Amino acid sequence: MTRRIGVGICGLGTVGSGTFNLLRANADEMIRKTGIRFDIAQVGCRRDHPDCDLSDVDVTRDIFDVVKNPGVDVVAELIGGIDVAFELVMAAIGNGKHVVTANKALIAERGEEIFAAATAAGVSVRYEAAVAGGIPVIKAVREGLAGNRIDFIAGIINGTGNFILTAMSEPGSNRAFAEVLKEAQELGYAEADPTFDVEGIDAAHKLAILSAIAFGTPIRFDAMYTEGISAVTPADIRYADQLGYCIKHLGITRRGEDGIELRVHPALIDKTSMLAQVNGVMNAVMVGSEPAGVTMYYGAGAGAGPTASAVVSDIVDVGRAPLAVPNLGFDADSIRSMPVLAIDQTRCCFYLKLTALDKAGVMARISSVLGQHNISIESLVQRDARAGHAPVVIVTDEVQESELDAAITELQALPEVEEKVTRIRIESL
Amino acid sequence: MTRRIGVGICGLGTVGSGTFNLLRANADEMIRKTGIRFDIAQVGCRRDHPDCDLSDVDVTRDIFDVVKNPGVDVVAELIGGIDVAFELVMAAIGNGKHVVTANKALIAERGEEIFAAATAAGVSVRYEAAVAGGIPVIKAVREGLAGNRIDFIAGIINGTGNFILTAMSEPGSNRAFAEVLKEAQELGYAEADPTFDVEGIDAAHKLAILSAIAFGTPIRFDAMYTEGISAVTPADIRYADQLGYCIKHLGITRRGEDGIELRVHPALIDKTSMLAQVNGVMNAVMVGSEPAGVTMYYGAGAGAGPTASAVVSDIVDVGRAPLAVPNLGFDADSIRSMPVLAIDQTRCCFYLKLTALDKAGVMARISSVLGQHNISIESLVQRDARAGHAPVVIVTDEVQESELDAAITELQALPEVEEKVTRIRIESL
Repeated sequence: MTRRIGVGICGLGTVGSGTFNLLRANADEMIRKTGIRFDIAQVGCRRDHPDCDLSDVDVTRDIFDVVKNPGVDVVAELIGGIDVAFELVMAAIGNGKHVVTANKALIAERGEEIFAAATAAGVSVRYEAAVAGGIPVIKAVREGLAGNRIDFIAGIINGTGNFILTAMSEPGSNRAFAEVLKEAQELGYAEADPTFDVEGIDAAHKLAILSAIAFGTPIRFDAMYTEGISAVTPADIRYADQLGYCIKHLGITRRGEDGIELRVHPALIDKTSMLAQVNGVMNAVMVGSEPAGVTMYYGAGAGAGPTASAVVSDIVDVGRAPLAVPNLGFDADSIRSMPVLAIDQTRCCFYLKLTALDKAGVMARISSVLGQHNISIESLVQRDARAGHAPVVIVTDEVQESELDAAITELQALPEVEEKVTRIRIESL
Repeated sequence: MTRRIGVGICGLGTVGSGTFNLLRANADEMIRKTGIRFDIAQVGCRRDHPDCDLSDVDVTRDIFDVVKNPGVDVVAELIGGIDVAFELVMAAIGNGKHVVTANKALIAERGEEIFAAATAAGVSVRYEAAVAGGIPVIKAVREGLAGNRIDFIAGIINGTGNFILTAMSEPGSNRAFAEVLKEAQELGYAEADPTFDVEGIDAAHKLAILSAIAFGTPIRFDAMYTEGISAVTPADIRYADQLGYCIKHLGITRRGEDGIELRVHPALIDKTSMLAQVNGVMNAVMVGSEPAGVTMYYGAGAGAGPTASAVVSDIVDVGRAPLAVPNLGFDADSIRSMPVLAIDQTRCCFYLKLTALDKAGVMARISSVLGQHNISIESLVQRDARAGHAPVVIVTDEVQESELDAAITELQALPEVEEKVTRIRIESL
């Protein structure tokens, strides 16, 4: 009594070819699990892929054929980009087909329209592969923790950035960002134009999705605070290490009384925390919820295999029960807007680094400025004084960022303070 | 258009009271997520619980009332134990009710009969809370990785044991098992009779379940190799540390060409591995699968809140789509027996410790015995020689355990070797 589900694959690049091959390789195991034969009804691609045997497959060069194909029940949108992908997904939904996508930019930026159309059409749009590759974290949040009230999500959700920071943090490395980026590019971990990854846009796409499913809000990529890692220096990593921290590029969303925090930025975290152990291109997402407490989900965040795993698991879900879980994990009419806090309204501990003249009274003046802004200092240490100049490293207690901004402006105006003050948030995770 | 699902809670101890309170506290959030009001139709318990306001609840002292109650759609079996729980669950199934349980012993030992009855009756039996508390790992394996072929699962799935080994491993601790066990008992992390936890039976129950859903086999608790942690000494922990390892109590199941490995025992793992970072009462489950690669799931493995989180998420799943996923993740008629390897048929690297007379030629004789059994030695080091006796610590390359057994028998027969040879498996995870 094996049922059949027709799968249409649009796009045969890294993820598309991985999905194609996985559907073939594990077809029998999937029948054992579901009683369903997931049949590749059609593949739409600009060109064949050398890793895929397409000899007995209906291949079209027009991806829009796939969403019109009556033998296709679920469309896997794996072409990437936003405009054409949006048009394709909307056409699929319009034709009553379920959609599975790995496209984080599409969901983060056009998800609202897509989900509204899908709800109206009575089809499902699934996007496990859009966040943290092979880690089934969308499922964990929407289903595994469905009984919980989620308080925060914090994740290392960009493998490129984590690879770079990990390499910069290796003992004795002292390597600069630009040098490690070059290596990442040579290894294929970073694009020729690395902006999306290293400036945090990719992570922001993913975090916007996670935040919406955690709190049942609209997807607010537009309201995200995004800061990349290109300004992190070997000295910052070294000083952080001396203080017991490592530096990771985090996406953090948190529900507070006044609204939701949505921010991607480098952060100091305790070297012994679980997130601190996540190295190289690996990803991890930590979820704080009540009453489950902290749970964490770890794995490969990219690559053909892990991403295909997520795409195919979504296809299996569509086969098993396409409408069991609403697209954002909350019923469409229960999605509620909540204010997103501007970054200067958030509260955090901070690592500050500045270079000051190495003379009597300087530390007192710095402390005094911070004190006038009611910023408590946990530590203030002068490091590596050289030729009359000394880096000063400060760790503050929790402070509202607008207050810190004011203090930094004043610090930078002090005649003894040379160069810009570096500020990196410190997170207790 | 809110639907109603009647929940019957059987048992109002730690997990039952946590479940009761969670269903109350997050009722509105759950309606937002599901459109379903999860209504506590009846509670069956021997006595009320001080943390639960039962004033407007139908309470019965006979738990069998609950499974007969026509207003109950899903029974939460939270009484624990095997015999009465089995009778209760079978009665619930017989009355056409879905079942959610936190009872690992019940599922590991009587799961086959229960699932057969549930399949015949067209109801669902869910047991996320039976494995690793608040970590949604059953869901991850059965659904999140549904497209994958799972190769192995390795987990720290008993919080008591991990608490004890963590405390014994603290720098400079040198505390013996018995002393730390006593502390764990005082803190409420270990039972008065700690056998189930420290001898690995609880972990074996959980691993038997994980193995079945990973490979689509019957649940083979009966075939499990189980070894506790009571024989682990401070010296073993110290020597392991010097070699770059820590000691964890692991449950491991692996699919090989000749069959499935099913084993719970202490193991040396690399100090830098993710599992090595899991400390105290926390749990983590690592899953190796193709093509997702290694993923890991971390969180609290016990306690009212985390366990209730898993119970309620299962209840939500039953409300959303009770029959979407088969009980073992594979269709009932696709479950296939596979041979379980006896422990002496498995292959592993080993840590060996023995005490020998500190005199010339001893090391050569030990090496020679190992060599005669084709056991390659990675390192062989004499430690802390004292008064003519010296502990010898050996790390072997991979060897079939039956061969190692034979070598150990010979080593113990050497006149220079005093006391029993300690053997702990080394796992690359």
